[in-house]
Amino acid sequence: MDKKELILNTMRELFKEGKAGTASVSDIAKKAGIAKGLMYYYFRSKEEVMDALVLREYEDIIVASNETVEKSGGNALDKLALLVKSYRSAYVDESLDEYLHMPQNAAIHQKSLAQILSSLSKVVTRIVEAGIAEGTFTCRYPGGYAEIVMSVLTFLLDPGIFPWNEEEYLIRLKALADMSEKWLGAPEGSFGFLFGVQTRSRS
Amino acid sequence: MDKKELILNTMRELFKEGKAGTASVSDIAKKAGIAKGLMYYYFRSKEEVMDALVLREYEDIIVASNETVEKSGGNALDKLALLVKSYRSAYVDESLDEYLHMPQNAAIHQKSLAQILSSLSKVVTRIVEAGIAEGTFTCRYPGGYAEIVMSVLTFLLDPGIFPWNEEEYLIRLKALADMSEKWLGAPEGSFGFLFGVQTRSRS
Repeated sequence: MDKKELILNTMRELFKEGKAGTASVSDIAKKAGIAKGLMYYYFRSKEEVMDALVLREYEDIIVASNETVEKSGGNALDKLALLVKSYRSAYVDESLDEYLHMPQNAAIHQKSLAQILSSLSKVVTRIVEAGIAEGTFTCRYPGGYAEIVMSVLTFLLDPGIFPWNEEEYLIRLKALADMSEKWLGAPEGSFGFLFGVQTRSRS
Repeated sequence: MDKKELILNTMRELFKEGKAGTASVSDIAKKAGIAKGLMYYYFRSKEEVMDALVLREYEDIIVASNETVEKSGGNALDKLALLVKSYRSAYVDESLDEYLHMPQNAAIHQKSLAQILSSLSKVVTRIVEAGIAEGTFTCRYPGGYAEIVMSVLTFLLDPGIFPWNEEEYLIRLKALADMSEKWLGAPEGSFGFLFGVQTRSRS
């Protein structure tokens, strides 16, 4: 295995064991079975290892969600619903999520949100473009739509930034669904999957 | 003057003089003409002073923009255009802006973006609601519209988070205008003010 990957996997283990906060660079190297000097060849500090791990975890989830969607049948609405479902059910280690929401880690949190937005926007754009081609949607800005939706999901609906209660969260998802239907020229109610109402579209 | 205000004004001066980074708590107290002990009564650290200043600066700009809009005539479209213009022309000290975009200040940056979003969303919501009442717009979620637009403006279009070039920035503003027109049922081109095209609406 790639040494860099090995170090990241080791860091992931440490997170799961609840030892990520206290582990030193020596501890990580020892657990990974590599020399401390070699570790510094790949990462300048423990923080760099943590940051790289966070970005890798989210990238993995997005790649997996994208594959699920690519393999699936159905029209663009079905694919968007599947993407949301697949991304939501992906598991991010709790301790990793906690780490991201500590004030001192706001920089890496912001960077990870930006990465999620960029990666998932590409996936959403492709689905919307396919939807336009097949006649499910009409929209002059499929990329703009994707980024606006992702801005809402990653920023406005991040519980660490805006601690909405359940009801406040729901009304924002309903607004997002309404916006999607109006902007994409989709039937009313077709974006119900965003807030849990599963209306199967006729495909 | 309120001592807290005095301390914040002093910090603001230090920013303007380019001394905010190096000034100690003692320096701030001395310049403000108050005892160091009293300073600690209001703020636990220099960072707390900086953070409070950032939040106050933005709140001031938003309050001023809101007043400009409240005083103005015209319909909801005119008011939105005026709000955008007024907010954009507001001056935020460059060194304060630089401070916000340093990685170690990401937490306060995030907090300030969240505050801008919350405050300006209330202003936009009121304008959109008035627009619905007067027949300029139709929308079931005026508050949702306001927050989604503000999510885009504060997060996706923050140059410190996404360093878009001019063309990339413009296309995103055009997408936002298109979304606004479609979701609010406004005439095509009526949101041109978002990207600098001033089409006066017939009011």
